[in-house]
Amino acid sequence: MPVGTAATVKGLTPDDLRAFDTRIVLANTYHLWLRPGRDTIEELGGLHAFMSWDRNILTDSGGFQVFSLESRRVLAESGVRFRSHLDGSEHEFTPENVVAFQEALGVDVAMALDVCVKLPAELAEVDEAVRLTTRWAERCAAARRRPDTQLFGIVQGGLDEGARERSAAGLLPLDLPGYAIGGLSVGESREELYRMARFTAALLPVEKPRYLMGVGTIRDLIAAVDAGVDMFDCVYPTRCGRNGRALTRDGDLAIRNAGFTRDPRPLDATCTCAVCATYSRAYISHLFRAEEMLGPRLLSYHNLARLAQLMSEAREAIAAGTWAAFRDRQAVTL
Amino acid sequence: MPVGTAATVKGLTPDDLRAFDTRIVLANTYHLWLRPGRDTIEELGGLHAFMSWDRNILTDSGGFQVFSLESRRVLAESGVRFRSHLDGSEHEFTPENVVAFQEALGVDVAMALDVCVKLPAELAEVDEAVRLTTRWAERCAAARRRPDTQLFGIVQGGLDEGARERSAAGLLPLDLPGYAIGGLSVGESREELYRMARFTAALLPVEKPRYLMGVGTIRDLIAAVDAGVDMFDCVYPTRCGRNGRALTRDGDLAIRNAGFTRDPRPLDATCTCAVCATYSRAYISHLFRAEEMLGPRLLSYHNLARLAQLMSEAREAIAAGTWAAFRDRQAVTL
Repeated sequence: MPVGTAATVKGLTPDDLRAFDTRIVLANTYHLWLRPGRDTIEELGGLHAFMSWDRNILTDSGGFQVFSLESRRVLAESGVRFRSHLDGSEHEFTPENVVAFQEALGVDVAMALDVCVKLPAELAEVDEAVRLTTRWAERCAAARRRPDTQLFGIVQGGLDEGARERSAAGLLPLDLPGYAIGGLSVGESREELYRMARFTAALLPVEKPRYLMGVGTIRDLIAAVDAGVDMFDCVYPTRCGRNGRALTRDGDLAIRNAGFTRDPRPLDATCTCAVCATYSRAYISHLFRAEEMLGPRLLSYHNLARLAQLMSEAREAIAAGTWAAFRDRQAVTL
Repeated sequence: MPVGTAATVKGLTPDDLRAFDTRIVLANTYHLWLRPGRDTIEELGGLHAFMSWDRNILTDSGGFQVFSLESRRVLAESGVRFRSHLDGSEHEFTPENVVAFQEALGVDVAMALDVCVKLPAELAEVDEAVRLTTRWAERCAAARRRPDTQLFGIVQGGLDEGARERSAAGLLPLDLPGYAIGGLSVGESREELYRMARFTAALLPVEKPRYLMGVGTIRDLIAAVDAGVDMFDCVYPTRCGRNGRALTRDGDLAIRNAGFTRDPRPLDATCTCAVCATYSRAYISHLFRAEEMLGPRLLSYHNLARLAQLMSEAREAIAAGTWAAFRDRQAVTL
């Protein structure tokens, strides 16, 4: 899922996203709650109409963002109070109001409010986060009013297998239409990420979407698909796009490098996107050196298109029963 | 002509430009000379191939930019030496090397090297600039090698009618395929701009393109077309686009204003562009408030499309013999 935190995938239009067959984008409850706010989006006809996106939208619950605020939030059984990073104003998220907000926006997939812990953490803290995440998921499920909004639960539990098991065991009785693996990709090692993603994915029903939050890079996507994960979101492709980093089959390119200034080749010779069909590395390198805004636009487009192609190829390989061979062929970038 | 100083109309792709029937863009000799440089552009197949633009390109000669450097340039009969604003490196423009550069880039219209004076100026200084501009135009004409590059001359003369007459009289014997009116839109009053544009346009052959450099706004375009001008360039629509100012039939809108935050209407109800067909003022206002890069992209697109529509309508009105009525209908924005 391309990330459109503030109701826009940075620099790209819905037409761009459809051009490489994007089916769902992610937006963010925390950011949209603060700006432009629920009333504005409702008045404009809901989030799809507001951002002119007619396909699926998933909103993160805001749990992750609020817990990133650290000193500016107070956690209680009822919910979490926090101060806006924009203007310091006070707000509270509860399981109920976060579900109501996402339903008011009319999103297709809403995420339950969860409690993230900063790693490393004591097991007691991890267990308390799991307990509260479970309780809040129950309250989120009870607060649902719209049958057309799919509520996903989020498995927490840090890097502890027992805690992950307890979290999954608490959520599965709710029979939610999908489950996410949260609390990872927050600074732990790649090996820990892969181990916990694989362990947790195996706890979740194979017939429902399994979503690894905050991932990622080409190698992380391949590893997570191998672990059974179906959905991802990450700012990585668009952030790289803004910073001059191109994702290619031969690894990442720092497009400002002197070696690209006269390189007539496309970013990635195997890529079928419009940017690779149209522009040379030399031109895109020039755009970044001249600090031209077309550079981030073109590179964000390519990076997202590149990951969309990768996932499309992964689906084909799985369907054809050739996943292992496909996975191993990607090893060059791992 | 949308301005693409550094081989990119800021934020937009060639596809965008073609969508509102752009036939020619402007690029800049001074900027491209310094970065990425002639060798790179030639090696990539010329400026059209480099920036993936298959329609016309006009390059300004760099005269205006060099004279803006003031303390960093030295003017002589032979040419003008200057230091790069990027790295302080020394360069020289001569009539001959500026023509050779533009021909090497393969542009469709090349501008002669001219001498701009800062206004207000003594008549002696204006006259000397006219003399040198005439002499340099002769040298530019003699330096031409490619029959497919059209060389335009530039009429100087500040705000003095006699100097403008002497400048035009010096250039017309060269029988160039087009003539520009330079040295205006540099801080003089709107009345002076209109008066000098009208006076100078009348000195130039009606059967050849007359190009008013550095103009402009909707009201300036209407006034200049009324004076007989055929071509324009200005950073105004794209600069406004980046800064949150929308050009509309009802005047400019500062899109960040609180009044637009819940406004479901398009930027301009009479505009046929893709942005007006797709997005609300509320959404674009949100993008600017959230400092999202899609905002400048969408607004730059709309502003250029809006001016393209205005010029298209002007051509139709002139062809239909209804120009005066059309001009007077635009008075609401004048």
